[in-house]
Amino acid sequence: MTSVRPPPTPTALTRASDATLTEQLAAHFAGPIRQRLLAPGTRLPSVRECARRHGVSPSTVVAAYDQLLAQGLVEARRQRGFYVRDAAPAPAGPEAAGPAAPRERRTPLPISATTLIRGMFQPPGALPMPGLGTLPVEWLDLPMLARAMRKATAPSQLGAVSLQYGEPAGESRLRRALATRLADFGIAASPAQIVTTIGATHALDIVTRTLLRPGDSVLVDEPGWSIEYARLAALGLRVLPVPRGDDGPDLEVMQRLIEAQTPQERPRLYVTVSVLHNPTGASLSLQSAHRVLRLAQAHDLYIVEDDSYAHLAPAHLPRLAALDALERTFYVGGFSKILTPNWRVGFVAAPPAWVDRLVDTKLLSTLTTPALTEQAMAHCLENGLLRRHAERVAGQLDAARSRVVKLAESHGCRFAAPPRGLFGWVDTGVDTERLARAMLDEGWLLAPGALFHATPRATTLMRINFASTQDARFWRTLDRQRREM
Amino acid sequence: MTSVRPPPTPTALTRASDATLTEQLAAHFAGPIRQRLLAPGTRLPSVRECARRHGVSPSTVVAAYDQLLAQGLVEARRQRGFYVRDAAPAPAGPEAAGPAAPRERRTPLPISATTLIRGMFQPPGALPMPGLGTLPVEWLDLPMLARAMRKATAPSQLGAVSLQYGEPAGESRLRRALATRLADFGIAASPAQIVTTIGATHALDIVTRTLLRPGDSVLVDEPGWSIEYARLAALGLRVLPVPRGDDGPDLEVMQRLIEAQTPQERPRLYVTVSVLHNPTGASLSLQSAHRVLRLAQAHDLYIVEDDSYAHLAPAHLPRLAALDALERTFYVGGFSKILTPNWRVGFVAAPPAWVDRLVDTKLLSTLTTPALTEQAMAHCLENGLLRRHAERVAGQLDAARSRVVKLAESHGCRFAAPPRGLFGWVDTGVDTERLARAMLDEGWLLAPGALFHATPRATTLMRINFASTQDARFWRTLDRQRREM
Repeated sequence: MTSVRPPPTPTALTRASDATLTEQLAAHFAGPIRQRLLAPGTRLPSVRECARRHGVSPSTVVAAYDQLLAQGLVEARRQRGFYVRDAAPAPAGPEAAGPAAPRERRTPLPISATTLIRGMFQPPGALPMPGLGTLPVEWLDLPMLARAMRKATAPSQLGAVSLQYGEPAGESRLRRALATRLADFGIAASPAQIVTTIGATHALDIVTRTLLRPGDSVLVDEPGWSIEYARLAALGLRVLPVPRGDDGPDLEVMQRLIEAQTPQERPRLYVTVSVLHNPTGASLSLQSAHRVLRLAQAHDLYIVEDDSYAHLAPAHLPRLAALDALERTFYVGGFSKILTPNWRVGFVAAPPAWVDRLVDTKLLSTLTTPALTEQAMAHCLENGLLRRHAERVAGQLDAARSRVVKLAESHGCRFAAPPRGLFGWVDTGVDTERLARAMLDEGWLLAPGALFHATPRATTLMRINFASTQDARFWRTLDRQRREM
Repeated sequence: MTSVRPPPTPTALTRASDATLTEQLAAHFAGPIRQRLLAPGTRLPSVRECARRHGVSPSTVVAAYDQLLAQGLVEARRQRGFYVRDAAPAPAGPEAAGPAAPRERRTPLPISATTLIRGMFQPPGALPMPGLGTLPVEWLDLPMLARAMRKATAPSQLGAVSLQYGEPAGESRLRRALATRLADFGIAASPAQIVTTIGATHALDIVTRTLLRPGDSVLVDEPGWSIEYARLAALGLRVLPVPRGDDGPDLEVMQRLIEAQTPQERPRLYVTVSVLHNPTGASLSLQSAHRVLRLAQAHDLYIVEDDSYAHLAPAHLPRLAALDALERTFYVGGFSKILTPNWRVGFVAAPPAWVDRLVDTKLLSTLTTPALTEQAMAHCLENGLLRRHAERVAGQLDAARSRVVKLAESHGCRFAAPPRGLFGWVDTGVDTERLARAMLDEGWLLAPGALFHATPRATTLMRINFASTQDARFWRTLDRQRREM
């Protein structure tokens, strides 16, 4: 049983907030408990200690702990204090007398993926997250976002983006700006081929729902992002992993997998990240791209190319969508990794014959998308703002990567793939699931390699974010934990 | 073959816009053509006439018509001018040499529903739409929305809503405000039971995807909204329609439908609009609500209660979610019908045991939702702003309804259900699919009754929007067309 270690950067409570001090303090603990960052059995600080640490009165702390009790997140142990309860307890109350507990009716997320993804949403200023997928807040260009948002919400504009449903395919101004940006990557897409979405995730969801039906097979890269595996499995699809090498997928395995299925079970789709692949950082070679497309043509396979890391990579890297001129490739992108994770603007550029169907699926899933954030995003894309910002970030990332590579290697780790882009694929020499649990107790959230496999397996690999692992304390702690295992 | 009738309120072209005059003029025609509001074969105005009408040079018109040609929307006939092409032609170009045309892999939207829903998104100032589902722009409170958006995007706030992913369940401040608002309707939901979504559509999608899997059966009200039928069918579900009467669903039919299925095929879910049902305007009686819940309990049926029209109705009307205290009812709401259609903020209040699973499905479909619009929506909900606005709108709607009922009855129509809320369910005495086509040629978009049936059938009914049918010219035109049929 561990006691709570103060987070490296304590969340400041503020009297200017909309929430009361009690609510803020309760939320300060409730978030990490819900995200399973504070393990069951962990003791909360004593009332006196908590009051001192946060500069509030003991009665505020008592009220906050009472709220946590009422929410079922902690339990009081007589004479000993407050302890985190088992994660996600079946809530006592009306539903106990109601219908049966949720039936297991779909593939659940792997628990570790759930933990990680919930960890992505921790409140600002809490634990550092070497394992996570976005840039640190301070790397983003808030003044640029503010100027763009001010223009999109100006009195003369707000009515147009608010009072009526937007265009089903998305704001045409944004689609024009996207078409221009895609030309930088060698992709010729007209605005009419582009459909906007709620982030790249929604684009992936819409394409899959349009192209496939439950029971269909889909090829994916392995390692890869397990949330994507979970998304496909939740749609009732059969996920067929293809080993991803440094140049691209293993085409012999892909061909064998295709030919091993009965004609009805042949995969119809291959989902891949061509550029700065997550988690290895590898990019598809030109030769591999050509061979992937030939194989796809031979077997009438569609391709979803997720280019979420596009803006962090050199523009000249080959995209499947560029080679085949969006004939059988659906190109998905977003801005969470470069501009803002939470405006939730993404898109898909599609073969022309599929655009109307994608728009129909979009209508059935969210009706339209908010014109307001799309107009603001268009401002960021126009006049080269995004391009210049991306160049700055890429420079910062190069410096961070050099530093982190030295730190990692001098603390007993080696790189399983050449370090590139945002993510490092690191071999720690010890089981990373166990390592991740030990590091979480010390306040560091890792992304163990098991999160990137379609089927659970023990692995000594983990994914690190070069931008958020520059703190030498992290590597010292990791090295100590490695040696103790 | 008809020639283009100038829309009642022509779209003004502006030199201040981001788009060139040519682009604006092309868009002026492209929108209605894509939405099938201008029928194939319709002749565009001559270059000279169009230049005069829009106050631009003939060369601008030629350039705009050239854009429409390039987009495949019109064709040039020698010596005769430009004509609208067949709707959604298979695009000529690269994909002709590419993979096969889209396979028919899911239930397509009924063509009439597609037309209507695309019509919902026409540019402001084009044809009036007696058939559509939202309030007229001028009934909405733009100054209130502007104040709320200004607060949410203030310099001190923008970073918090932009630079990190939001809470997976949605902004807690909005969920608190929603919990307070739901209490007005007698629904006791804690903020922890609420998950925010991209409008009510996304909430319906998330709940269905979480509760059901392809092949499952689902009960729906008939008449009802055909986009909802299409959404369920696209998920691979079997849609079982239950006749909806003035007090609620026909419970004998519902029971027979349940018992007629094999145990594996028994419906697991009933999707319904309890208050101001679309299209009849009927609301569930207290007695009927009680009986629906007893039947649901006896057959272990979940219920999705779509309360999209909540704010237009007296608060005391019974909700299933109030009666069963969210035990087996998932309560869905949004603000498109009262505040703003395109901020796309909706939510579901759910039985506690299901909340985590709904959040997982939300993560897989859109990751998070934009905190920015959710914070702005919270401003509108707090301090009674929404309640006072809704009271004003309800008063306006009462006046409009009185006027429209007189107009309708004096022009040969009668009401198939007592007129209430936003929609009238009107018997025209003639086939409304034919009537809708004839009225479209005159510039009025109707919602024929066939749009509200799960299986296509001829009907003399149509749905009208009381707020947008106050123009006596509409009723005179309708009456003339009725008599000519």
